[in-house]
Amino acid sequence: MFKLIVAYDGTDFSGWQRQQSQRTVQGAVEEAWREITGEDVSVSASGRTDAGVHALGQVVGVASDCPLDFGQIRSGLNAKLPDDVVVLRVESAPEGFHATSDAKSKHYRYLIHNDRRPPLFDRRYAWHVPGALDVEAMHRAGQALVGRRDFASFQSTGSPRDSTVRTIFEIAAGRGALPSQDEGWRESRVAINVVGDGFLYHMVRTIAGTLVRVGQGSRPESWIDEVLASCDRREAGQTAPAQGLSLVSVEY
Amino acid sequence: MFKLIVAYDGTDFSGWQRQQSQRTVQGAVEEAWREITGEDVSVSASGRTDAGVHALGQVVGVASDCPLDFGQIRSGLNAKLPDDVVVLRVESAPEGFHATSDAKSKHYRYLIHNDRRPPLFDRRYAWHVPGALDVEAMHRAGQALVGRRDFASFQSTGSPRDSTVRTIFEIAAGRGALPSQDEGWRESRVAINVVGDGFLYHMVRTIAGTLVRVGQGSRPESWIDEVLASCDRREAGQTAPAQGLSLVSVEY
Repeated sequence: MFKLIVAYDGTDFSGWQRQQSQRTVQGAVEEAWREITGEDVSVSASGRTDAGVHALGQVVGVASDCPLDFGQIRSGLNAKLPDDVVVLRVESAPEGFHATSDAKSKHYRYLIHNDRRPPLFDRRYAWHVPGALDVEAMHRAGQALVGRRDFASFQSTGSPRDSTVRTIFEIAAGRGALPSQDEGWRESRVAINVVGDGFLYHMVRTIAGTLVRVGQGSRPESWIDEVLASCDRREAGQTAPAQGLSLVSVEY
Repeated sequence: MFKLIVAYDGTDFSGWQRQQSQRTVQGAVEEAWREITGEDVSVSASGRTDAGVHALGQVVGVASDCPLDFGQIRSGLNAKLPDDVVVLRVESAPEGFHATSDAKSKHYRYLIHNDRRPPLFDRRYAWHVPGALDVEAMHRAGQALVGRRDFASFQSTGSPRDSTVRTIFEIAAGRGALPSQDEGWRESRVAINVVGDGFLYHMVRTIAGTLVRVGQGSRPESWIDEVLASCDRREAGQTAPAQGLSLVSVEY
């Protein structure tokens, strides 16, 4: 049983999950695994990322007894994978490891390019919000989401779950903390970091879209409590575009 | 007379200079200018960048009396330009300003991805050098190039100049100083910054390829003096690939 730590640029993928005649990250990893080991495996991830969503540290479980060592697997996979997927590390996983159900905590980052000028080096990785944003207000407002809450208002339809209760451990919105290719752009970058035990469909993107309305001054900070209490998706802000979202890391 | 500060991702351009039926940055800027002002202009840059070379702050001169204000020009151009070119600022330039011949100093950066694993978010912006690199040795060796020198050994054929003497004001090679999309990659990033009064054809890329040979330990630091003294391109290292090079800024 192996555990792969995988990064990808989601721009040109139809998401993580394998689909017939679509370019998917799961499909690319399984194909590369078959090329280096001859094995047909079905790999599992900590969670499916949607089309256009990136990963800095997705965790992938592979049930295999292949005799290659970790370094050989890593370099073998990287030699076969397309250039928008990279295996960062290969580790052993305990027998019966389930990348999806064993995940205890996930960290997502939502990146906003907040500048009148369009993004350049971030154009595949950020949502362009040109007007003024009060990021400190976004940070304060976000604290209302921390804890064990019913996030029904922050879930898109289309992927119903048994329960809409999740726990968010931490939310932090900040400007300039994240560097860029070009240091001149640093102050234009606003990052919303969200750590939780699990996420509903489009939940982080809806949180981002909702906090941006507070940052733009079109809603007060206290609005977040009302949105939560309503348990009604129509009360929250827009679902922010996929390209700004990255799965940063997963804890087990 | 206007001065535009322009950034671009050079990956999908056949360089700066306008060419028939090629996608060029100059062509894109002139086309956007025509769309917003109706004027046919021929714009000039501080220097031509080659295919695949990026710019964080290219300076472009436009001879025009158009009545739009700076903000209107900037946002008008950005609305018309493709998403891999961005006008950062618009300023006025003194009458008779020549973006090419008036440049006093240019700053280039060469970026190396130094990791066994391939680059992901830097794959369009860095040269992948997988083996160990002694970056401090590269930095020390580079100091031999500082000053007024004959750089004939560091010039590719194909673009002869009257003189091969240029002045380098500063060279600095460092690891981890430049951040990345993913902080986990920071230590993999090696940047060579070069500031000079002008550069011969492929000069920065040849300096990068030459310093990498020192960093890999295949040549001693003192080798740089020998390469300079030879005035023979065959003595230097390889021309590093275009994708790692960015024009950072130009002083007038």
